[in-house]
Amino acid sequence: MRFQPPKGTKDFLPEEMIKREYVIQTIKKKFEEYGFAPIETPVFENWKLLTKKCGEDIKQQIYYFKDKAGRELGLRFDLTVPMCRMVANNPQQPKPFKRYVISPVWRYEEVTKARKREFYQADIDVVGSSSMEAEVECIACAVDCLKALGFKDFTVIINNRKILDGFIELIKADKCKDVDIFRAIDKLEKFGEEAVKKELKNCKLNDKQIEQLLGLIKTKDVNEVKKLLKGIKIGEEGLWEIEKIFEIAMIYGISEMLKLDFTLARGIDYYTGPIFEIKAKRYEKYGSVAGGGRYDNLIELLGGRYTPATGISLGVERIVEIMEKEQMFNLPRTKVKVFVANATGDVKPDVIRITQKLRKEGIPAQTDLMDRNLTKQLEFADSLGIPYCIIVGRKELEKNRFKLKDMKAKSEKELKLEDIIKLLSNC
Amino acid sequence: MRFQPPKGTKDFLPEEMIKREYVIQTIKKKFEEYGFAPIETPVFENWKLLTKKCGEDIKQQIYYFKDKAGRELGLRFDLTVPMCRMVANNPQQPKPFKRYVISPVWRYEEVTKARKREFYQADIDVVGSSSMEAEVECIACAVDCLKALGFKDFTVIINNRKILDGFIELIKADKCKDVDIFRAIDKLEKFGEEAVKKELKNCKLNDKQIEQLLGLIKTKDVNEVKKLLKGIKIGEEGLWEIEKIFEIAMIYGISEMLKLDFTLARGIDYYTGPIFEIKAKRYEKYGSVAGGGRYDNLIELLGGRYTPATGISLGVERIVEIMEKEQMFNLPRTKVKVFVANATGDVKPDVIRITQKLRKEGIPAQTDLMDRNLTKQLEFADSLGIPYCIIVGRKELEKNRFKLKDMKAKSEKELKLEDIIKLLSNC
Repeated sequence: MRFQPPKGTKDFLPEEMIKREYVIQTIKKKFEEYGFAPIETPVFENWKLLTKKCGEDIKQQIYYFKDKAGRELGLRFDLTVPMCRMVANNPQQPKPFKRYVISPVWRYEEVTKARKREFYQADIDVVGSSSMEAEVECIACAVDCLKALGFKDFTVIINNRKILDGFIELIKADKCKDVDIFRAIDKLEKFGEEAVKKELKNCKLNDKQIEQLLGLIKTKDVNEVKKLLKGIKIGEEGLWEIEKIFEIAMIYGISEMLKLDFTLARGIDYYTGPIFEIKAKRYEKYGSVAGGGRYDNLIELLGGRYTPATGISLGVERIVEIMEKEQMFNLPRTKVKVFVANATGDVKPDVIRITQKLRKEGIPAQTDLMDRNLTKQLEFADSLGIPYCIIVGRKELEKNRFKLKDMKAKSEKELKLEDIIKLLSNC
Repeated sequence: MRFQPPKGTKDFLPEEMIKREYVIQTIKKKFEEYGFAPIETPVFENWKLLTKKCGEDIKQQIYYFKDKAGRELGLRFDLTVPMCRMVANNPQQPKPFKRYVISPVWRYEEVTKARKREFYQADIDVVGSSSMEAEVECIACAVDCLKALGFKDFTVIINNRKILDGFIELIKADKCKDVDIFRAIDKLEKFGEEAVKKELKNCKLNDKQIEQLLGLIKTKDVNEVKKLLKGIKIGEEGLWEIEKIFEIAMIYGISEMLKLDFTLARGIDYYTGPIFEIKAKRYEKYGSVAGGGRYDNLIELLGGRYTPATGISLGVERIVEIMEKEQMFNLPRTKVKVFVANATGDVKPDVIRITQKLRKEGIPAQTDLMDRNLTKQLEFADSLGIPYCIIVGRKELEKNRFKLKDMKAKSEKELKLEDIIKLLSNC
């Protein structure tokens, strides 16, 4: 009986891992340059915590289980809720608390080739600041991550839940739950206008209100919206925040990427202010590569003090997918630099000593563990893509000069071990 | 309502994460020097797969759940079984397949201060080789990891399941399930002789057999055991393998750490040959820091071709615990190198530009996001342990000379921005 990875999950073999690690390490370095600090939380959390403010759609996607004492648990569906729980429990942490996590999350969704049920997110958050500078810093950092990975140009779509709240007030739908309406609007890009209309009907909006709302969110003219929202406090606040973001983005040199779009709503309930998504230009067809927003009430809701917070999440899987399909990776197939081959079995002890010496010098090295002959050893090294081989025989040991084979150039040199070490240390 | 991390799990705040990441990165580097390649598998697996050869004790500890389609799943209790499943599904992978994983696993055990239900393991395995060189390479690599972390000397306790099988034949208990007996013996160090006797009775051994078996495993005299196992093929094979390990360990320069101990049994069912555990000298009271063994049948059992394999697992939590208690860490509290403070609010745009410049140079930098005055900004930087602050005011900008405060030495210098960048890049 053969077992597959559970539906919606997959294994990563070394060649894929090298790509994934490159993406993760590049992102991590940028996160740290921006002053974000690493944290980690458990993969599962209290079920009540997870479902407190995620919304019905996400709730349906959480992997639920009980531990042996009957505690109701769930695999985390994002990295924001666990972090907020942690902040609520650690009020002593100086503010702003700038943290990052690069870790997997789980959602039971329809599986496609690109969308799995287990996937990595790379999150940064600024906790404790209500300044729009926090938003811009997060967006600038995400943009820099993507640039470091080889993406060139970006569209940062932004909106504000407060503006949408203003629209709801404007169409006099304030008896509806705003989060239901946000979740409906969020489906516009994915499922089209008819689907949204149907959902909005379920939110108890009448036909007129639905037409009005769709008209409002599709407006391209900001001045028009400003006029309409005049006197509606929440809406005015939302517009002011967006202006502030544009202003600060100028200083960061990223204001030209920003694009205000009132149809952006985002799918999770906990957002309270500015929301944003990043699309990489030329690769828009893959969808957004990062998204986030402000969630000023979440930490308080989870039992902490009132603590404003904002953050952004990079979609690691999406980024890897684009980079693979668009051939943006230029990485070796293996991190092993050299294979130390034995010409005959009797030199094995010397081969081990040489291999250990290389490793001590920080040079990733492999040697035969299968009692293979020389030809087979070299074939094996080649099959892994190891770039160099050292050939060790009796004569070579006596002379202390060894053949260094360049497996790609199919050339070889005879060198002293010390010179081989120097050469391999610098390549 | 306040939520705690689920029982048996914990959060890691930035200061702890810096220590954990140091341990993990140090181990990772050594693993790669030894030519092991990274892989990754899902956190949950098919329940049938997990319980196929784990033994009853472990089975009771697996977090079990169903997904929404009713698939029976469990959180992985180790990293070996998922890897074997992966190898079984990918027979094309060249052999030996040397892989590493550093990831969490879950076991529902009694929680103590040191033992949690979610914990990291750092595993290396050599898949496809039946040579004892594979064992020694794994042990040598684990020892090098520990040395790189600051541990000085080690005891590597080894035994062989085949020798224990020889003992079972010798006392004529071959109708008992050997794995039940191994699991009983494994409890000797933890629970004492009486507990083991009781367990052995449950394995249907009579009093005489129990006395005989306990006598055999407590023997210190190898020659005595050799004589006793003469003619018992499995036992002779086990002893030969141990001799081979000592021989190869000589070449690796680690033979003096090895200590043959017939009481070592290890708790998991799937081992078939040499088994080993590493204890750090001076820190024996914390228990072993690494353990592993050979499991030649597991991949076939999980649906693959017959593929011999061996490996070792470093206990990341145990290592971190010892290093913390024994004050072996010497790390900064934060990776942020500099805080760029504004003397007055009006220079904020310039402060952002300077901060961004530092980040572009690869210097982790933070700046104020709270509209604080200068004193409060410096207090905040100090509370995080940020080692340097740059103070930016109108005058400083005009002169292009800034105060660089060394927060620890409580000294300051006036420097050009370019010189600050040079200084911070080299510290």
